[in-house]
Amino acid sequence: MTTSNLVISIDAMGGDNSPRVVIEGLALATKKNPDIRFLLFGDSEKVLPILDQFPQLKNVCEFRHTSEMVHNEDKPSHVIRNRNTSMYMAIDAVRRGEAQAVVSAGNTGALMAISKLTLKTITKIHRPAIVSIMPHRYGKYVMLDLGANTECDAINLTEFALMGDILAKHALGIKRPRVALLNIGAEEMKGKEEIRQAAHMIKNSHMDIDFKGYIEPHEISKGIADVIVADGFTGNIALKSIEGTARLVVSMLKDAVKKSWLAKLGLPFMLGVAFKVKKTMDPRLYNGAMFVGLNGLSVKSHGGTDALGFSVAVNNAATLVRQNFVATIKEEIEKIDLDELSQDVIYEVY
Amino acid sequence: MTTSNLVISIDAMGGDNSPRVVIEGLALATKKNPDIRFLLFGDSEKVLPILDQFPQLKNVCEFRHTSEMVHNEDKPSHVIRNRNTSMYMAIDAVRRGEAQAVVSAGNTGALMAISKLTLKTITKIHRPAIVSIMPHRYGKYVMLDLGANTECDAINLTEFALMGDILAKHALGIKRPRVALLNIGAEEMKGKEEIRQAAHMIKNSHMDIDFKGYIEPHEISKGIADVIVADGFTGNIALKSIEGTARLVVSMLKDAVKKSWLAKLGLPFMLGVAFKVKKTMDPRLYNGAMFVGLNGLSVKSHGGTDALGFSVAVNNAATLVRQNFVATIKEEIEKIDLDELSQDVIYEVY
Repeated sequence: MTTSNLVISIDAMGGDNSPRVVIEGLALATKKNPDIRFLLFGDSEKVLPILDQFPQLKNVCEFRHTSEMVHNEDKPSHVIRNRNTSMYMAIDAVRRGEAQAVVSAGNTGALMAISKLTLKTITKIHRPAIVSIMPHRYGKYVMLDLGANTECDAINLTEFALMGDILAKHALGIKRPRVALLNIGAEEMKGKEEIRQAAHMIKNSHMDIDFKGYIEPHEISKGIADVIVADGFTGNIALKSIEGTARLVVSMLKDAVKKSWLAKLGLPFMLGVAFKVKKTMDPRLYNGAMFVGLNGLSVKSHGGTDALGFSVAVNNAATLVRQNFVATIKEEIEKIDLDELSQDVIYEVY
Repeated sequence: MTTSNLVISIDAMGGDNSPRVVIEGLALATKKNPDIRFLLFGDSEKVLPILDQFPQLKNVCEFRHTSEMVHNEDKPSHVIRNRNTSMYMAIDAVRRGEAQAVVSAGNTGALMAISKLTLKTITKIHRPAIVSIMPHRYGKYVMLDLGANTECDAINLTEFALMGDILAKHALGIKRPRVALLNIGAEEMKGKEEIRQAAHMIKNSHMDIDFKGYIEPHEISKGIADVIVADGFTGNIALKSIEGTARLVVSMLKDAVKKSWLAKLGLPFMLGVAFKVKKTMDPRLYNGAMFVGLNGLSVKSHGGTDALGFSVAVNNAATLVRQNFVATIKEEIEKIDLDELSQDVIYEVY
């Protein structure tokens, strides 16, 4: 083991092709970040033979055997009772202070349930949220909540705005992120009551946020906001609509090329373009949904990702740990009293 | 005037480039559907000089002068009080039985407000919805509600499923449409309570619907459902996310081609492909959001569309009128008692 203080805890058994993809992902991350140490939880019979193939990685890994694991079909209510799974142990390492972040490619519901139970929500934050980094035409933005909370009130949305703002600063390096609430219209009276109340709270709080009001989903790709805030149901609908459509357009292009010999002749000329667009839109480069609002960072890798994708999730976690992301949220939330503010809002709106 | 019974009422003043685009659109529609007659409402000074340029269209048009019009910034509460606008008069022609459908490219909120006030919701239907026809990889589907109702209960969603089923049969010619509720997961317990209750109601009603359960937004483009049902907020978020992403991918491709001389060399080979994809995704071919659930058909054309787009909206309206769409909804809704069914659901869920 090296002597670095940056330790990330890893659930080696989560995801479709674990532990191979996980270990290969860590090997890639190690090349880029030789200062990260890993606490690796998993089945020794499965993990160690693969780990032996990566001596450089092995050198920065501490391996701990776990006999059980969380399965995709396991219910959150079930998994929180079994403290012997690789996922539980990996998350618990963050609670115990042995690691500053955890990464798992396992079941999202289970990861959120154990993370909430173990790490606990930051004092004064009402609900944790799931955040991802996504591509727009000119760069990247963060969107939250992507599914942790099906229903949200104005206080939840306001807290998401605060956490999204800090994340965009820390993970994207944007000095003054433009924050917007996802809505179905730009006018002040559009959409749901909790969205209108949140707009009012963000404007009237003492948070130092560059709040841009509402954004409609078709405006996101134009890059006019760096932080998009929504309840978990709406955010998840938008995220999956975006993913599905990107795939539809690409598959339509492929179908059309396959059916045309003329287009096939043009393909060699187009390879650069295809490569560039693919590189910008490559879902692996945006892998790693972060659970924010907890005392410790929990990162969910896509279950079907490959080694490159897993390494991106690990890199994102490392970046946020280095920048003291969790501590910043704690400091900022201490400065405002959202519960008091919400009383004013309710008074003014009714 | 010809002696056809198919009469569509037109607001000549709605939309960005009215009345020119509207009249050119009608001229295109007339070529395809020589049996449609039009009742045209608008400012005679602006409409008649253009109408004179299309003698074939003029022959099937009855023009009525209106001195006022609805503007984009007008509030619904305001427009319903002025019965002299081209939009109000055009909708009212359907109420009076002079036309079977109305098409307008004006303000959506105004069109919905006047349509509801004038045509009234069908007895036993609780809320009208906005529906559009959209492209998936292998064909077309209908999605509703796209924004008429920000919040919906299980009864509303169940009625949307019924109306969407009939619309897919009539407008897309699908004998047994596959109907699905838009949700953030496929499992039975996922999502919001009203969605779970609606799933229960659709399964247990006497509606003869091929109900497929939940669909997630990224599955839509795979063509596994013909009718997608959501509340108006969620439907609008999904619709606009889809539109925005399609535009993002296309603009990324264009940007990349512009920057590469090699890609430019390949362009002539690719024109066929680009044309084919553009033809499949062309928003003009999906123009015309239909307001369903009213005693008469009200169709909203995109405000910024061109003549081709406007003609598509008119053709959609004509198809549904020919197939007695409104009468079919009335017949089908008479067969079921959703209020009684909802009592059972609430009893079973709690």
